[in-house]
Amino acid sequence: MIESPLMFSHFLLRQCVREGDVVVDGTTGHGHDTVLMAELVGSEGQVLGFDIQAEAIESTRARVTAAGLESRVTLYQESHEHAVSRLAEGQQIGAVQFNLGYLPGGDKGVVTQGSSTLRCLEGLLPRLRKGGMAIFVIYHGHTGGPEERDALLAFAAGLDQKVYTVLRYDMLNWRNDPPFLIAIEKR
Amino acid sequence: MIESPLMFSHFLLRQCVREGDVVVDGTTGHGHDTVLMAELVGSEGQVLGFDIQAEAIESTRARVTAAGLESRVTLYQESHEHAVSRLAEGQQIGAVQFNLGYLPGGDKGVVTQGSSTLRCLEGLLPRLRKGGMAIFVIYHGHTGGPEERDALLAFAAGLDQKVYTVLRYDMLNWRNDPPFLIAIEKR
Repeated sequence: MIESPLMFSHFLLRQCVREGDVVVDGTTGHGHDTVLMAELVGSEGQVLGFDIQAEAIESTRARVTAAGLESRVTLYQESHEHAVSRLAEGQQIGAVQFNLGYLPGGDKGVVTQGSSTLRCLEGLLPRLRKGGMAIFVIYHGHTGGPEERDALLAFAAGLDQKVYTVLRYDMLNWRNDPPFLIAIEKR
Repeated sequence: MIESPLMFSHFLLRQCVREGDVVVDGTTGHGHDTVLMAELVGSEGQVLGFDIQAEAIESTRARVTAAGLESRVTLYQESHEHAVSRLAEGQQIGAVQFNLGYLPGGDKGVVTQGSSTLRCLEGLLPRLRKGGMAIFVIYHGHTGGPEERDALLAFAAGLDQKVYTVLRYDMLNWRNDPPFLIAIEKR
């Protein structure tokens, strides 16, 4: 079965995250991806989760705690923009995951911004280990969504193919600005 | 690891083809996909393979025979355009696979044509069973390649999302007209 972009992002996370990895959830939202990443990194791994909304951080903390995974997760109520500064010097990461857009069920006036996403990505890309991935599920139907999408597409398309593989995974016949996936793998 | 479009087409074939299926290889080329499909359909299944070039049919027949799978494969040295007429009345299929472009190592003047590919697809789409897929790996760097690509993209993008899911899987940062994948799944 052809997986949705969101389900395919989970498939890719399962492929690239290894036990013991440090990984970043750039937009924890309600914590679904945070929990998956915490399961994948194992008891020796660590998830750093970012969200600017208190509601998202609380929702994520509750979900992570219910799963008994709180020792593997550190949450920051701040922009992912400076995520790299929360990593130890020289620390490599196995994955960074983003759901770009707004918090489902939350304030639609609070959306991710292309500029902060790109700064986060520019900081974290050099930290990806070989086989590690930056994965984006991009919702772009809201105000500012097309600009964020286009900035990310232009950046990703310009990456050196000798260093990174950039996949686009999208549904051609879905209507109404469907979400799609971009994955950047360190070769 | 992010798979190439060709490798991802094999991943999708493994997902959608079931034992006992009838399937179609629309462009046998050197028979690599034909052999994979013959393995997947099992001893009760059947692969119908099409190629207009004698060289391709011979190459495929040799590969299929070497794999001991000749009882599962019927080869036709003719255009896939009328593939549907080679199916029994009302026969459903699990998959149809195409590598669009020219035969690797063969005559670059002999290429698939968008019009024949679309006629083949229009004939076979109604025969896909639920969960079955039409899978295209599209090479489009040759003369006529962009036109074939664009005709297929336009057709696929227009399919009703209640009936079909259409995936595009492509590498954004590869240079020089890289191949990409389109998959159409019957929902």
